[in-house]
Amino acid sequence: MALPIPDLPVLAEDDSMLSRKFGRELANYFAGSPLNRLSFLRTDHAFLSSAFSHPTTKFLLLQNLSPLAKDPTTLAYVHKADVEPLTGPDPFKKTEEQLLQEFNSDVTFPVVLFLGIDEKKKTGFEWREYKGEAHFAVDVTPQGPIAEKAKSVTEAVKAKGIDFLPGARHVSLNAPEAAIYAQARHMLDWNARNPFCGGCGQKTLSTNSGTKRVCPPTDWAGLPDGSKAPKERGHCPTRKGISNLSFPRTDPTIIVAVVSADGTKLLLGRSKRFPPDWYSTLAGFLEPGESIEEAVRREVYEESGVMVGRVVIHSSQPWPYPANLMIGAIAQATPSGETIYLGNDAELEDAKWFSQDEVREALLVGVDQFGQDGSQSRKEGALRLPPQTAIANRLIDAVIGGYLGAASKI
Amino acid sequence: MALPIPDLPVLAEDDSMLSRKFGRELANYFAGSPLNRLSFLRTDHAFLSSAFSHPTTKFLLLQNLSPLAKDPTTLAYVHKADVEPLTGPDPFKKTEEQLLQEFNSDVTFPVVLFLGIDEKKKTGFEWREYKGEAHFAVDVTPQGPIAEKAKSVTEAVKAKGIDFLPGARHVSLNAPEAAIYAQARHMLDWNARNPFCGGCGQKTLSTNSGTKRVCPPTDWAGLPDGSKAPKERGHCPTRKGISNLSFPRTDPTIIVAVVSADGTKLLLGRSKRFPPDWYSTLAGFLEPGESIEEAVRREVYEESGVMVGRVVIHSSQPWPYPANLMIGAIAQATPSGETIYLGNDAELEDAKWFSQDEVREALLVGVDQFGQDGSQSRKEGALRLPPQTAIANRLIDAVIGGYLGAASKI
Ligand SMILES: [Zn+2]
Ligand SMILES: [Zn+2]
Repeated sequence: MALPIPDLPVLAEDDSMLSRKFGRELANYFAGSPLNRLSFLRTDHAFLSSAFSHPTTKFLLLQNLSPLAKDPTTLAYVHKADVEPLTGPDPFKKTEEQLLQEFNSDVTFPVVLFLGIDEKKKTGFEWREYKGEAHFAVDVTPQGPIAEKAKSVTEAVKAKGIDFLPGARHVSLNAPEAAIYAQARHMLDWNARNPFCGGCGQKTLSTNSGTKRVCPPTDWAGLPDGSKAPKERGHCPTRKGISNLSFPRTDPTIIVAVVSADGTKLLLGRSKRFPPDWYSTLAGFLEPGESIEEAVRREVYEESGVMVGRVVIHSSQPWPYPANLMIGAIAQATPSGETIYLGNDAELEDAKWFSQDEVREALLVGVDQFGQDGSQSRKEGALRLPPQTAIANRLIDAVIGGYLGAASKI
Repeated sequence: MALPIPDLPVLAEDDSMLSRKFGRELANYFAGSPLNRLSFLRTDHAFLSSAFSHPTTKFLLLQNLSPLAKDPTTLAYVHKADVEPLTGPDPFKKTEEQLLQEFNSDVTFPVVLFLGIDEKKKTGFEWREYKGEAHFAVDVTPQGPIAEKAKSVTEAVKAKGIDFLPGARHVSLNAPEAAIYAQARHMLDWNARNPFCGGCGQKTLSTNSGTKRVCPPTDWAGLPDGSKAPKERGHCPTRKGISNLSFPRTDPTIIVAVVSADGTKLLLGRSKRFPPDWYSTLAGFLEPGESIEEAVRREVYEESGVMVGRVVIHSSQPWPYPANLMIGAIAQATPSGETIYLGNDAELEDAKWFSQDEVREALLVGVDQFGQDGSQSRKEGALRLPPQTAIANRLIDAVIGGYLGAASKI
């Protein structure tokens, strides 16, 4: 039996004209965050200080990108007092202007990321018309000059019996918290990957509460005590106007369920890394100068040789490994373009047309989920598919469920 | 009279089930390239050398990101002989492995970008089963150590009476060539913006024919003549596994036509930078950990205070200024969420609900295009809208044309 995705948030289950025409909107795993990001307040240090120090505020800790958790399904939050040994009592006390003027490339600050407020929890914290529990994420990876301070934080929480989730993929978390984790992970990873400026090669400074990295024009590093002014740094093109290099990167990626021209078959492929019998939808990065639809046609052609006609975008999924936006599409092969050819790109080990019956069976008995083996009744060698936390599964499910317009056969 | 977009490529005008259910696919300006990118051959220097030296091969030159053009609607291409003073007779003669081993951070190579082949033009160039005219783009901006060589190329072509297009936006080009230009501009700009490694701050080397930048482990710079081995460079995290920092960046951006709950009105906003009377759809960058639909809801809320229910993705547009993927959506406000409030974000100067009649009139007489004033019969102070080359116009047009399901009133 396929296991349901626990508590996926229902988005826009309304009776609007768009809903009547296109049906209910699908929420994918890692989407559906309960937080209002209040992105326009990330530069407001008075706001950030107030949010940071409120007693109801929740701090999520990430160590090597793994979240602190009560159990595999539930995040654990700590309090301001727990992070203070690393962050100090108020990391937002100085303005961004001050921090920029005081920039010293030898000094490392921990990244303290403002995630947003949970407006459903109206306990306490208020700012202007906004009310709710504030959420921060703090990178406590014991690295570089702040390693010892980070360690003192992680050891204190571990002493209370909570620990960081093991493993590389965290798809066991409940859906709303998975979305909070996706935001935290993607942002903290981006900060950790980009300590230097791609435009000039000099060190950058994290600002806007972890959501921007700027290339300061001056540096106090290496100056003797009592110096009156910092050194000028080399020219940097990112200081003129607004540069996208200063902001987090998200890589648009297409993923597509390709249906045969007559609608009866589904194209799936497998890479060498996949477990035995496992196939999935085709996927790849969108390229510069491409629409989503063009990226779908190119990837399907390059990986499988199949030629695609109409492409329809179905839903999307943030995928923080490390920084993807998965754009899910359903596409239809042209009648003369169904021949599979693996000789273009060497990416896939195999690609095959599967009948709707084979795929329907695999959705029922060929899907493992949350460490539970969902394939007890699967026949030896029968098709296996990705779990429901992956948009690939949702796209396949949509096709089998009647997305093309035929009545659902499920 | 609104002017038609010239020759927008028709994509997937087929009779597939997806087409019957969802209608014809819309091609936006800057999409619809006639080239097959053959992305899997970008590492194959034998292929690249052969394509580079074929007599039918076309070279597009960009100077400060402006394309060489015959006139505002048509690109001009040059031949191998024209670019040789800058690129040498065969920039792909050495393998990538050799180039990496010989890396010298004091030496600058021009970026020679392979764009793809035009398979409709089967004149001459063949490689395995692929046949067509090959296209390259070369950055001839006279900068740094290659300034003089670049100048000799640009001066020779100018002496023939062709020049680079003036202006900052090039939306006068015919649609297929606009797509070729978008690919070239986005890729060459990415190379120019990222001479250094964000992971370690050291200089990077352009490889894969302009589509990848690697951080070499060694450097011959500054060594005395006759040295036997290069210097080891500092540790870099991008050298382990595959790093997204090595590949071009594309920033997903949402843009949305918001319809009122009853379907009769359209929400448009204006920033201070807009010309008088000009309004457009709302837009903003997608954030880490967000689905497209969530980004739409957040941006509309932050910029206008309006609360959005169902979101449907309509079409997408590559927008190479500098690196955007515009994801166009149509969304519907909730019945209780239509009140406009500009106090969250300070981004918009104004936001307003417009009647379908006002917007229909503006599509007819309030749109300038290709330097021609399309607003001759526009009443003083009446609404103006972006041109048809912008996806904003296409989204507005879709709503007025009956996208919500009501019969078209146009
Ligand atoms: Zn810089
Ligand atoms: Zn590096």
